[in-house]
Amino acid sequence: MAEQDIIIHPEEDIVDPWTVKSSSDKGVDYNKLIEKFGSMKIDEELIKRMERVTGKPVHHFIRRGIFFSHREMHHILDLYEKKQPFYLYTGRGPSSDAMHLGHLVPFICTRWLQETFDVPLVIQLTDDEKFLWKDLTAEETHKLAYENAKDIIACGFDLDKTFIFSDFDYVGGCTDFYKNICRIQKLVTFNQVKGIFGFDDSTCIGKVGFPAIQAAPSFSSSFPLIFGGHTKVPCLIPCAIDQDPYFRMTRDVAPRLQFLKPALLHSVFFPALQGAQSKMSSSEPTSSIFLTDSQKDIKDKINKYAYSGGQATVEEHKEKGGDCEVDVSYQYLRFFMDDDAKLEQLRKDYTSGELLTGHLKKELITVLQKLVGEHQERKAKITDADVKKFMTPRKLNYKY
Amino acid sequence: MAEQDIIIHPEEDIVDPWTVKSSSDKGVDYNKLIEKFGSMKIDEELIKRMERVTGKPVHHFIRRGIFFSHREMHHILDLYEKKQPFYLYTGRGPSSDAMHLGHLVPFICTRWLQETFDVPLVIQLTDDEKFLWKDLTAEETHKLAYENAKDIIACGFDLDKTFIFSDFDYVGGCTDFYKNICRIQKLVTFNQVKGIFGFDDSTCIGKVGFPAIQAAPSFSSSFPLIFGGHTKVPCLIPCAIDQDPYFRMTRDVAPRLQFLKPALLHSVFFPALQGAQSKMSSSEPTSSIFLTDSQKDIKDKINKYAYSGGQATVEEHKEKGGDCEVDVSYQYLRFFMDDDAKLEQLRKDYTSGELLTGHLKKELITVLQKLVGEHQERKAKITDADVKKFMTPRKLNYKY
Repeated sequence: MAEQDIIIHPEEDIVDPWTVKSSSDKGVDYNKLIEKFGSMKIDEELIKRMERVTGKPVHHFIRRGIFFSHREMHHILDLYEKKQPFYLYTGRGPSSDAMHLGHLVPFICTRWLQETFDVPLVIQLTDDEKFLWKDLTAEETHKLAYENAKDIIACGFDLDKTFIFSDFDYVGGCTDFYKNICRIQKLVTFNQVKGIFGFDDSTCIGKVGFPAIQAAPSFSSSFPLIFGGHTKVPCLIPCAIDQDPYFRMTRDVAPRLQFLKPALLHSVFFPALQGAQSKMSSSEPTSSIFLTDSQKDIKDKINKYAYSGGQATVEEHKEKGGDCEVDVSYQYLRFFMDDDAKLEQLRKDYTSGELLTGHLKKELITVLQKLVGEHQERKAKITDADVKKFMTPRKLNYKY
Repeated sequence: MAEQDIIIHPEEDIVDPWTVKSSSDKGVDYNKLIEKFGSMKIDEELIKRMERVTGKPVHHFIRRGIFFSHREMHHILDLYEKKQPFYLYTGRGPSSDAMHLGHLVPFICTRWLQETFDVPLVIQLTDDEKFLWKDLTAEETHKLAYENAKDIIACGFDLDKTFIFSDFDYVGGCTDFYKNICRIQKLVTFNQVKGIFGFDDSTCIGKVGFPAIQAAPSFSSSFPLIFGGHTKVPCLIPCAIDQDPYFRMTRDVAPRLQFLKPALLHSVFFPALQGAQSKMSSSEPTSSIFLTDSQKDIKDKINKYAYSGGQATVEEHKEKGGDCEVDVSYQYLRFFMDDDAKLEQLRKDYTSGELLTGHLKKELITVLQKLVGEHQERKAKITDADVKKFMTPRKLNYKY
């Protein structure tokens, strides 16, 4: 999204780990968010440096500003240049077995980072969080963690270098992890989580303590077995920007524990089919394309729900052109169409009015049917035994 | 303590898990406390029933009103009569390696209960709590848990039927325990713990969540291995009355989780050497007789610090007599002198003025030197391997 396209009413955007709402049909004002959160924009200089250091082009998520903000990514590149270790940490809240396209975004980026930098990765499944926040039992969210792990593994992570864990398993399975949680919880007051997360007196005490559980995997000392006893390995967290409050808190407590502050890469939200005012959400099925949707589902949903940036009539469209900034089909193609040249041609032709919405939707349907179809094929091959392997605490294969 | 002896300013007593302060030199008004906390007095009828059901006299702690209050002890006796199972749960906060006489009280009672009812027992060492509340590292309190375990084992628990655990180990070692903690934390709001425990906005989020960790061992489903998968075994908790707020909260949430409410036996506080206005505290060494004190230490401390209920001069004492209700030596003898007849004789002779404070102190010194000396002998024989046995999660030997 070009800088000049970012506009209006930024004060009305609501962005926290539970709510993303924008009053603009172009979605959240991300530049304002960078300012508010105090992070750094991923600029041309950083992108060029990443390409220079790794010797390969950056993922199109980074090139196209889908990952748009960071904290201390230059430090991570310094480490990589000096052949010093770091690890990746990302996660998911398993509130449903129906993962959707938006959920893939951090995992696709994380997979690319793991492949590019050849580093270990821990993936937290916050079944405890979803139990606390949703009307689900502990058994249900615990089971969903294992369900979701299959979708995550289907993204292509390296078993040798990846540990996936459910919080119920791992808090209840590792004293060092629980100790780090307590260490963080000792340094954060109710007043602070009230300010950061909007908790109040009626919030249950489980929620009050939870931010420490999402913070703790940022510190390699939480994983003595996984990292072979290396307790000071720096951490890079790719995540959607709504998760940043957790990691601002984490970065605040880290030095007081003599721990390293994690670095971050932030993505934009994945828009709902209805448009960028809200993000895609499993709890609103018509807003979402699920990873379990059939080829026909995908076609029908795009055709029926994908918000169009086109004009009311063909004549008007040909005359005035379409608006890519609000057109959901175009926005989705930015996420999932690899081919830069083709995407740019579509943008030009849609903007000029030469291409109609129907054409853009057709392109998107083809891309998504392939993406989801291939995901389903990979997922079908993943057995419970594979999940067990990824989720068994063990030393990852990496030289420190 | 006879009922008519309980007096004045009860509204100024402060009793919560961190503070016990009374404005009266006779200590906390326990009858008022029963009223305030909504528990039941351990009356003659209950004592007689216990003796009838078990076929043996109750421990002198119960006979003498040191354990003075209960919740649903009749229900526990019903179970015992019907040969139905229950288990005991008690604990300690390992804030110091110097355990004192007061710390022995719940363990002596618990040991008697285990022996009398022949039931399993879990003992929680809240090293996480002490880390959160004190200026100690997690490593220090974790280590203290193991130190304290030796003193606890020296009280004579049955290895076959006793599981001792550190929270750092067991929260970080048992998913079912952590799940129960989350279940409790989901049902308790910040507002509630504010009311029950006096937390405020500046309280760290670890403390805010902790009450659930002390609550969780009240439910046998927190110990699937220990109780061989029996998830509905009723629980009896012997503890000092200041711990009751935790278990009022526990009893409140239990039915909403379809768990059983724990029964309770409450003890009075063990008074400081300086008198019953405050309880014995490790953090004030001159208030305490430690389990590590030498025979000479015991003698010197009693002679130097034990608050006397005697009169200013021998003449006056002989004329007016001593006051057993405030005399610390007499009060300690009530805890630790087995012989009822001898204790009664001492009380009469001291009250009439026939016996001087020095005599009472001498009697007490003899009793405590024996008690502490024998404890030290037993403790000296306990090896790290013994501690490990008690602290290894395993199925306890008990028929359900």
